[in-house]
Amino acid sequence: MSRTEVPPGTAKAVRVAAGDLVRVVDVEGGQVGDVFAFTDGGTELAEHHSAAHTRAGVDKLFPAVGESFVTDRRRPILTLVGDTSPGEHDMLIPACDPARYAALGAPGHRSCAANLREALDEAGLTFTGPTPQPINVFMRVPIGAGGRFSWLTASSRPGDAVTLRAEQDCVVVVSACPQDLVPISDAGLSPLAIETVRNGGTRS
Amino acid sequence: MSRTEVPPGTAKAVRVAAGDLVRVVDVEGGQVGDVFAFTDGGTELAEHHSAAHTRAGVDKLFPAVGESFVTDRRRPILTLVGDTSPGEHDMLIPACDPARYAALGAPGHRSCAANLREALDEAGLTFTGPTPQPINVFMRVPIGAGGRFSWLTASSRPGDAVTLRAEQDCVVVVSACPQDLVPISDAGLSPLAIETVRNGGTRS
Repeated sequence: MSRTEVPPGTAKAVRVAAGDLVRVVDVEGGQVGDVFAFTDGGTELAEHHSAAHTRAGVDKLFPAVGESFVTDRRRPILTLVGDTSPGEHDMLIPACDPARYAALGAPGHRSCAANLREALDEAGLTFTGPTPQPINVFMRVPIGAGGRFSWLTASSRPGDAVTLRAEQDCVVVVSACPQDLVPISDAGLSPLAIETVRNGGTRS
Repeated sequence: MSRTEVPPGTAKAVRVAAGDLVRVVDVEGGQVGDVFAFTDGGTELAEHHSAAHTRAGVDKLFPAVGESFVTDRRRPILTLVGDTSPGEHDMLIPACDPARYAALGAPGHRSCAANLREALDEAGLTFTGPTPQPINVFMRVPIGAGGRFSWLTASSRPGDAVTLRAEQDCVVVVSACPQDLVPISDAGLSPLAIETVRNGGTRS
């Protein structure tokens, strides 16, 4: 097992092989994470996880344990194999980005969109497309009457984790969301951790 | 007023200026349309309507009349100013594409994703990014218990229309969805029409 710490408000990229497990851990609890996944196609990434294609594939808003996230080419990339959190996650909302913080009166604020590029760059990877819509783990955006959203604070507890199995060789980026102007994460930003297990643990 | 016919299963692109109205008409009723919008930046398009950013902007699944669709840079691009249909539209499902039809056992079937590229090409335009998630007008995908989707047949009547105001100079592509293997459109594919009115009709 290999563990990568994701300091508060930043992101890290890991490369995993088909069959490996990727666990996103909410170390202190109450912290939203933005998860991105790309098919490992060398240093120039193209095919990526697509929220819209995943929704159509599982015929619901978010995969259940045992169901897969798919790419923009509808190929399985990650399967949700475990979840020790209360199980509320979001796949409706885009990554926070410079435009979001400018509108909130905080230009130059760190963002998950910029974190993604920074983490890829640090890993020697590039992706030239628009920021893909992330898997927002531990983020609570329930839908009410008239399709209206509520933005609630993450209810994940210290050590809660989502476990994903890689269905292909891929690059997974996890951003510990720097959003501290809207209370989607608990008071104060906190770290996340990415744990990877080779071949589901059978040959680790 | 200028009118562009969109034959069944195909797409057309129109260029409009800020302030213009774009009306998507379901000519015979019961026909789903996939609508894409791009900021008019010359022949190479980049900034485009983003379903995820629009959802976050209006804080609900689909804009109400008077609310705007925004781009991946969170800039308003189209405002929903009128809707004579029953008002059920989708912004959860991606465009149908070659992978979708291959999985349905119909490789080579026409698709909204391919229609988009064809219509842009016909208009002398290119967009190199992945297919943006469309605004699926007249498409009914209600959300039930556990976030589960139902795929219902369009209930729009002949002549029903959605009217959008351009908030910037933009390219709007409308695909009369060729999906005839899943009954999202009424029996038999039918045409749509795109009507454009200069400057909201004040100087037409």
